[in-house]
Amino acid sequence: MTLLEGIQSPADVRKLPAEKLPALAQEIRQRIIDVVSNGGGHLASNLGVTELTIALHRVFDFSTDRLLFDVGHQCYPHKLLTGRADRFDTVRKEGGLSGFPNTAESEYDLFNVGHAGTAIATAVGMARGDALLKRDTRVVALVGDASIVNGVAFEGLNQAGTLKRQMLVILNDNSWGISPTQGGLAEHLARFRSSKTYEEIKERAKTLLPNIPVVGKALFDAVDHLKEGIKATMSPNQIFEPLGFQYIGPVDGHDIGHLIELLDLIKDVNHPVLLHVHTVKGRGCEWAAAEPGVFHSPSGVEVQAGKVTVKQGTGKSWTNAFADALTTLANDNPKIVGLTAAMPDGTGMNKFQKAFPERYFDCGIAESCTVDIAAGLARSGMRPVVAIYSTFLQRAFDQVFQEVSLQELPVVFCLDRAGLVGGDGAVHHGFLDIAYLRGFPEMVLMAPADEPELNAALRFALTLPNAAAIRYPRDKVPTEPLPDCPPFELGCARTLRSGSDATILAYGVMTAKALDAADLLAEAGVEVTVVNARFAKPIDRRMVRDALAGGRPVITVEDHSVQGGFGAAVLETAQEMGLSAAHLTRLGLPDRFIEHGSRAGQLAEAGIDATGIAAAMQALIDRCGKGEGDASTDKAEAADSKSRAVASESSYLTRS
Amino acid sequence: MTLLEGIQSPADVRKLPAEKLPALAQEIRQRIIDVVSNGGGHLASNLGVTELTIALHRVFDFSTDRLLFDVGHQCYPHKLLTGRADRFDTVRKEGGLSGFPNTAESEYDLFNVGHAGTAIATAVGMARGDALLKRDTRVVALVGDASIVNGVAFEGLNQAGTLKRQMLVILNDNSWGISPTQGGLAEHLARFRSSKTYEEIKERAKTLLPNIPVVGKALFDAVDHLKEGIKATMSPNQIFEPLGFQYIGPVDGHDIGHLIELLDLIKDVNHPVLLHVHTVKGRGCEWAAAEPGVFHSPSGVEVQAGKVTVKQGTGKSWTNAFADALTTLANDNPKIVGLTAAMPDGTGMNKFQKAFPERYFDCGIAESCTVDIAAGLARSGMRPVVAIYSTFLQRAFDQVFQEVSLQELPVVFCLDRAGLVGGDGAVHHGFLDIAYLRGFPEMVLMAPADEPELNAALRFALTLPNAAAIRYPRDKVPTEPLPDCPPFELGCARTLRSGSDATILAYGVMTAKALDAADLLAEAGVEVTVVNARFAKPIDRRMVRDALAGGRPVITVEDHSVQGGFGAAVLETAQEMGLSAAHLTRLGLPDRFIEHGSRAGQLAEAGIDATGIAAAMQALIDRCGKGEGDASTDKAEAADSKSRAVASESSYLTRS
Repeated sequence: MTLLEGIQSPADVRKLPAEKLPALAQEIRQRIIDVVSNGGGHLASNLGVTELTIALHRVFDFSTDRLLFDVGHQCYPHKLLTGRADRFDTVRKEGGLSGFPNTAESEYDLFNVGHAGTAIATAVGMARGDALLKRDTRVVALVGDASIVNGVAFEGLNQAGTLKRQMLVILNDNSWGISPTQGGLAEHLARFRSSKTYEEIKERAKTLLPNIPVVGKALFDAVDHLKEGIKATMSPNQIFEPLGFQYIGPVDGHDIGHLIELLDLIKDVNHPVLLHVHTVKGRGCEWAAAEPGVFHSPSGVEVQAGKVTVKQGTGKSWTNAFADALTTLANDNPKIVGLTAAMPDGTGMNKFQKAFPERYFDCGIAESCTVDIAAGLARSGMRPVVAIYSTFLQRAFDQVFQEVSLQELPVVFCLDRAGLVGGDGAVHHGFLDIAYLRGFPEMVLMAPADEPELNAALRFALTLPNAAAIRYPRDKVPTEPLPDCPPFELGCARTLRSGSDATILAYGVMTAKALDAADLLAEAGVEVTVVNARFAKPIDRRMVRDALAGGRPVITVEDHSVQGGFGAAVLETAQEMGLSAAHLTRLGLPDRFIEHGSRAGQLAEAGIDATGIAAAMQALIDRCGKGEGDASTDKAEAADSKSRAVASESSYLTRS
Repeated sequence: MTLLEGIQSPADVRKLPAEKLPALAQEIRQRIIDVVSNGGGHLASNLGVTELTIALHRVFDFSTDRLLFDVGHQCYPHKLLTGRADRFDTVRKEGGLSGFPNTAESEYDLFNVGHAGTAIATAVGMARGDALLKRDTRVVALVGDASIVNGVAFEGLNQAGTLKRQMLVILNDNSWGISPTQGGLAEHLARFRSSKTYEEIKERAKTLLPNIPVVGKALFDAVDHLKEGIKATMSPNQIFEPLGFQYIGPVDGHDIGHLIELLDLIKDVNHPVLLHVHTVKGRGCEWAAAEPGVFHSPSGVEVQAGKVTVKQGTGKSWTNAFADALTTLANDNPKIVGLTAAMPDGTGMNKFQKAFPERYFDCGIAESCTVDIAAGLARSGMRPVVAIYSTFLQRAFDQVFQEVSLQELPVVFCLDRAGLVGGDGAVHHGFLDIAYLRGFPEMVLMAPADEPELNAALRFALTLPNAAAIRYPRDKVPTEPLPDCPPFELGCARTLRSGSDATILAYGVMTAKALDAADLLAEAGVEVTVVNARFAKPIDRRMVRDALAGGRPVITVEDHSVQGGFGAAVLETAQEMGLSAAHLTRLGLPDRFIEHGSRAGQLAEAGIDATGIAAAMQALIDRCGKGEGDASTDKAEAADSKSRAVASESSYLTRS
């Protein structure tokens, strides 16, 4: 039996002889490498926190103590030690373990987190709640150096510093984050990363204890005073002490013995402590440590002829398509600047960075700040493009409101990972961007159906006098693009296929699914019109009239919540035009969270793959009947040319 | 002619003899006191920044240099010096000056800001933009001690610290913010507020200059080294230096001469500098300085028999009604905890604080953190109530998503200032909360029609297993409440008046307006049913069926954007039920920003006062005709009892 097989819960970690712990770390590491190589997942960062996680479960008892993860994807060793080792090969797969802490899986997971920076604030809440409920729990927040620069983390530190009780924040500093960390704080941490010996650090830790046995309070005060003197000249992280924390470190995060000894020393200190731990991303795996960015979250790893590479699916990703589109446009327009919030690889902004380093800004995991910097750049006269995951733009909602929309500034948001995201699951779906952006006056919302359309949408967005957002999914672009791609015109949809029985209004990548559904329906003798809506705001009123006025069945389909999304916008427009939508069905994401799995499986679950769309249309026709003869005129018009927004009904056209 | 009358632009400030500047400050101060006493506005904080604003316009030229306000309401002296003195008595009034920086008013206002904490980040953007465009501008961000604890401000500092060019952040530390500032940083600032003499500070400022004349680089380096030594022992704000700033201060913010001298010294320093200025809120006005919280933003000031009081309208505010409701409920439930983000007075949470100090948490201007702390408290088993302005909850949108909704935690959000807010204008309307909260599964959205309903809604929210939000406006509660107030039941509307011609579905405070509109319509011979919807999520399906199935005209009315709001939810529900909404009109806020003025005037402008609702109904009837005879059954049912959600169609009922 392996050591890991003997661990059913953290209690078993505490029973192991100390000298076995390094071997346990090796087993955990190998298990993670095997599972991720085979099926994908977060690799390098989990290899970095293996010893730290073991030490935490050795010293604390998280069946009553509280462990809060700030960087959710660093939870793999934690999952392996908390009764989930036997199912670990199912991580991120449908029906399997989540790739993030998940309250449904284990009592050891307190929050489902995938958006970084929140652990300190929730830890403060639990510390205060437990105190009010007279529970004697210890609270630990495990934070990364990339997420400590997030504003919520800072707000949390500022609150935590006022606690008059135990509170341990561990800064897991691998000097990397997802990409090399950005900003003044990162430079500061780097400067002081290895300035002290372990013995010095241990002595410092001892001075934190409120009652050092025998020595007594008076001497403790004297030591404390001395410590203050030392701090002034050597504390690497004076930033934390003004916030009310006492700082310990940096300590080697791969020395289990030292970690356990230090954690034992400080676990009951009755005020906030920040322990600075230095780890290596990819530790113990030569190729992962050599390229931690490449092996951050591979979709799988292949070893061939001694060469280790990330498994790649076939086809071109939307991310790469965006990277190509932006870089091409930026060649001709020196005012274009590109911004990312710590996701140069994930958003494709790294290509822009290589081409135009002086026009590229990575603002770290600080989405609010990223949008504000973009707004400032726009106010100066530049044309900023913010490439960000749909789910992460939620973190800058108020900045999109106040600094962009209210100022009428032309910032372009390129929303990657819009819609269902597959293995990352519920914490990462981009399911609300249309709903929360649609309320901003003059905001233009677009979604391309294929790569040429992404190019055209971005080109168009950069001509607008106001803000625009373009959404596309974590997927490959269609291998067979639409036959042609005329330029985007404000609020103009395109009819791609004509049929007199019913209409499908598709948004963005749903266009390809709708065309496939139309083929399926044609086989069953149902001829449908398929419209590529292109815009969710402004909605093409002629598209709505053509679809609804004849009384034929209509389906809207979007990779977004049905509440407040594209279909809702169609519905609102129909109502404003006095058209009945009783024969309309909106397809999209249901009003519940969708768990991790494959994107294809998730689309099917939501009923927005080709089969689902065809079935919904058949059901609608069964209820309402097919369209009547008057559709022929509509059809002729629609086939004739792209549909056109009615100018007098749109305030947009008067502005541009 | 007064000095102020001679100032048409900041150039005139620079022409004044230096010895006249204190007198100019006095004139500005008096003008602000007069205007605010008469018509309301932000008082104490503007009195605090008078000298600082004069000094800034004296040293910099903001026709090309950049001045970014972090706390928008501190802009009154700035407005008086930038060509707007003659119109200053119109501040916050319809058609008058905005109470915040406003780009439409003046080229000296670069961003319309009312949400604090964003100036440093936008300043970084402008600094980078201007650098790319080869403009030789200086950038200044004026920040308050209350907003520096906001996460976006910290993110901005972290980015600003990496700039290799001039960037001045001025920390206006009045040790107060809107309420006394919270957190470890505030305690730290307080500790060091007055530790140095002006001469020491000036010497320190001199060392920042890259080339001290004659002395040369070598000596400068030596001085710099010495300075480092000094800093280690005496810098009060070591927190800023790790972020890449050089720190100067604290300096007396009411000594114009010293301020000008220091700003002159540091204005061209070619790296980021933080100048710490100490000011007194309410300075120069005895009663405002004595109670800066009371005189933060009075609706007017009265002096009677030597006693100075804030003008109060008649009637009880929704804020006070909430304060009473929460405090009463908390008497019986020791698990209730109350949270505010620096708005104890504005939200009424101060009453709860007095009654239950140990269960009260003010987290400062840090909305994200506030929601996360609430989530932690809920995870511990407490019942947190977050009282926050609707517009400010936008700043915690992602925390409501990840830390609350995704975890299914029962946090109750009480959204004050929902809807149109009057004098604060476009930056503060709560016009999107329904749209952005409605997409969260299981979230319950409510709005009370009067004070007893607010009590009932809050009581009900605290029994739910998931999160809920209750919205109410900046207004007085209706003086004549509804005849009765049965308890809230999930997704159940109440019919208040029956009429066979048409139906008004009203949300929250629109109920009273709808009842008034029904009176107006009755005078014109039109009998309408009025329904108090109570819930925007889940929508009462029986309400929708009763209203729409008969084919009678229906109007929805809400104090919220018509896009994605209550009316949209009704529309979506109707579509899901296969009901036509061609005879429905949605009233609410239009798709544009509504400027400052009186709330009554804004409601009229949006067409959602009684007259507007009645007119819209008349227009709808003119278009569609009145309801037909089949309405009698509906009417009988509706009058009989409150409408009831159809259990089988709601996933909510299976959970609670």
